[in-house]
Amino acid sequence: MTPEGSSGESGPFRVGLLGHGTVGAAFHELLEARADAIEQGVGRRPEISGVLTRSRGQFDDLLERSDLIVELIGGTEPALDYVLRAMRAGRHVVTANKQLLSQHGDELYATAYEHQVQLRFEAAVAGVVPAIRVMAETLAAAHIERVHGIVNGTTNFILTAMEETGASYEDALAEAQRLGFAEADPSEDVTGKDAAAKMAILARLAFGAPVGLEQVPYEGIERVTPEDIEYAKDLGLSLKLVGRAERIGGGIAVHVYPAFLYGGHPLASVRGSFNAVTIESPAITEITLSGPGAGGTQTASAVLGDVISAMIPPPTLPPPAVEQEIVMDVESAFYLHLEVADRPGVLAQVAEILGLQGVSIKSVVQKGLGDDARLVMVMHPVLESKFRAAIDLIARLDFVRSSPRVIRVIEEVFE
Amino acid sequence: MTPEGSSGESGPFRVGLLGHGTVGAAFHELLEARADAIEQGVGRRPEISGVLTRSRGQFDDLLERSDLIVELIGGTEPALDYVLRAMRAGRHVVTANKQLLSQHGDELYATAYEHQVQLRFEAAVAGVVPAIRVMAETLAAAHIERVHGIVNGTTNFILTAMEETGASYEDALAEAQRLGFAEADPSEDVTGKDAAAKMAILARLAFGAPVGLEQVPYEGIERVTPEDIEYAKDLGLSLKLVGRAERIGGGIAVHVYPAFLYGGHPLASVRGSFNAVTIESPAITEITLSGPGAGGTQTASAVLGDVISAMIPPPTLPPPAVEQEIVMDVESAFYLHLEVADRPGVLAQVAEILGLQGVSIKSVVQKGLGDDARLVMVMHPVLESKFRAAIDLIARLDFVRSSPRVIRVIEEVFE
Repeated sequence: MTPEGSSGESGPFRVGLLGHGTVGAAFHELLEARADAIEQGVGRRPEISGVLTRSRGQFDDLLERSDLIVELIGGTEPALDYVLRAMRAGRHVVTANKQLLSQHGDELYATAYEHQVQLRFEAAVAGVVPAIRVMAETLAAAHIERVHGIVNGTTNFILTAMEETGASYEDALAEAQRLGFAEADPSEDVTGKDAAAKMAILARLAFGAPVGLEQVPYEGIERVTPEDIEYAKDLGLSLKLVGRAERIGGGIAVHVYPAFLYGGHPLASVRGSFNAVTIESPAITEITLSGPGAGGTQTASAVLGDVISAMIPPPTLPPPAVEQEIVMDVESAFYLHLEVADRPGVLAQVAEILGLQGVSIKSVVQKGLGDDARLVMVMHPVLESKFRAAIDLIARLDFVRSSPRVIRVIEEVFE
Repeated sequence: MTPEGSSGESGPFRVGLLGHGTVGAAFHELLEARADAIEQGVGRRPEISGVLTRSRGQFDDLLERSDLIVELIGGTEPALDYVLRAMRAGRHVVTANKQLLSQHGDELYATAYEHQVQLRFEAAVAGVVPAIRVMAETLAAAHIERVHGIVNGTTNFILTAMEETGASYEDALAEAQRLGFAEADPSEDVTGKDAAAKMAILARLAFGAPVGLEQVPYEGIERVTPEDIEYAKDLGLSLKLVGRAERIGGGIAVHVYPAFLYGGHPLASVRGSFNAVTIESPAITEITLSGPGAGGTQTASAVLGDVISAMIPPPTLPPPAVEQEIVMDVESAFYLHLEVADRPGVLAQVAEILGLQGVSIKSVVQKGLGDDARLVMVMHPVLESKFRAAIDLIARLDFVRSSPRVIRVIEEVFE
């Protein structure tokens, strides 16, 4: 056993591990396998000072013997209590817990700042993709304007399968469950809630603003049809569950929704269970980072990367985030799919309503005949409130045979 | 003016700037624009302590007044002399100079280690793409097995144009020159030499081995034909100038060559003048980083990111690289394109020669008739020496009407 009390700046760097599930066990193993290389690289040797699970270990005792706490329990309790107590005791914390960060970010950041300890969480967003690190460190040199992310591997796997095989949402979900890419209860993933938590974390970092999960409206992929994807292909578009965080005027906006991406968008080619994040800034144009979104070893290696960084602490920590306006009504391009009666004047009436609301049509395709007639349109960017107002009116037209289908379109890569 | 002598750990962090061309001027401007944000983030304010150009400034004087030297002169002399003198005087160095690093890496690294100063060079490889940072920091936790890179924007621009328009190499090059993506003398880029220098830098970091430009065999894109690209499309492949650094047995191999990438490869979708790097490791599977490969402001922001990192120095620096065997003869899959006389037995003879050399055919397509007959084959991975031996024999067959065309194929993403 390691001796009690602080080991100071020399001696081994003692890592207390909370949780020993898939990721915890992989982390434990990886740390031991890499201890020599890390010692050579940073001058100190990391070692596991103890492991706390539901059935073994005692938190206060482990804390006393640790320089840093790795929290891999998941969920908000008792994880929040442990993490706060660790930081208050002057210990650095590394966590992969997106719920914790997106729901209790303010308290966690403030506590880290007050006690001048590091709070690191690369593994909480986009698996092994170093989005957090790149955003926090590299881009200290740049003013970030916008972040686009595919931050949920389950939904990207399902959408990719639908695109490749023409399968329905239900069949693609069942296949994802069979292969272990979706859980038995997939609702956190398919509703967009998981992605929203991750986008809240990214937005806080990108803009230095306190963003919580409750400030991120999200839509999922449950209502995506094979037809939507077929139309997208015709238009050279790719349907993804996209998280988007951006500066708008003096405020910021964060959303998660299924969106069509133009073929040239750096996220359009991200397939299967992969995750990717595109960071846009005038100074850098854009950087895209991609890689596997999950996996025990992959997540463990992101956690270990954080531990190594915490072994080399910066002299000071930046102050907590500054409150900024959260903008909900945002400009976006839209795809509109209407099932209509096949008769003269239909397009004219739809176009008139759109025009009166200030919505400008970019392209129109009329498809099918008779009972199968469809009007597929893509709009130029417009405030969502205006577009929704037009859609409410269009939905009431007598020749519109079912609810209008609306999907956002992400076109522009550069400002 | 800043007072002379060391400013120690407080007061402004004094940056001496060598060179004031496009990148130098952009860096100067960006540093001043971001000084407030950086001071808030890391607790010290960076400032330009002076600028040295061919026509103004005196190096020793500037060195005396600087905590860190940013070298943006380019070329090896006088840059090498300045950088070595700066490090010997205990100053950190940030450079964007790939020639310097790939030709004098051993001396530079050893000097940085001896004097325990930081030598940072994110901007030397892949523009704003944080490949160096991610490799050096995040992946301290992982054992890197292989790196694939599209690290030259000029050649990727040309190949993308050829693919999109069917243009010849000469026409695509002329267009790249017209648009400023290629220089008047494009030879450093199109021969693969520029990419080889960057791959040497990446390989040194990835494997901790002293790799110099002279250890990287390189081939360029000058002989790529529209027909090659057309065949690639038929096969679902994408032709890229690829740098590949990998561990082989106990040694390492680094190469640059045009290669066909399977559609699913993370680099296959990198278009235009963008750069990208894929890092493979069992612990992380793979991470891909992509973004603009050049541009004054983009490069300047990578330089500034390095300056910020150097303001937060780690307690110790890793020791210099360890000598490792450089492997030249490496396994690869190959595409073979033969113009042949259209008569019976042709395929049988080619296949027999390949078989005798241990080369296994994965797929064959016979195209055209009579004088236009072609045999297009893709091989399973094989040692290059064996494949070349077979090709030498095949080239001598009487029915082979012109030199065999050979392009490598990169298929596997995962080990």
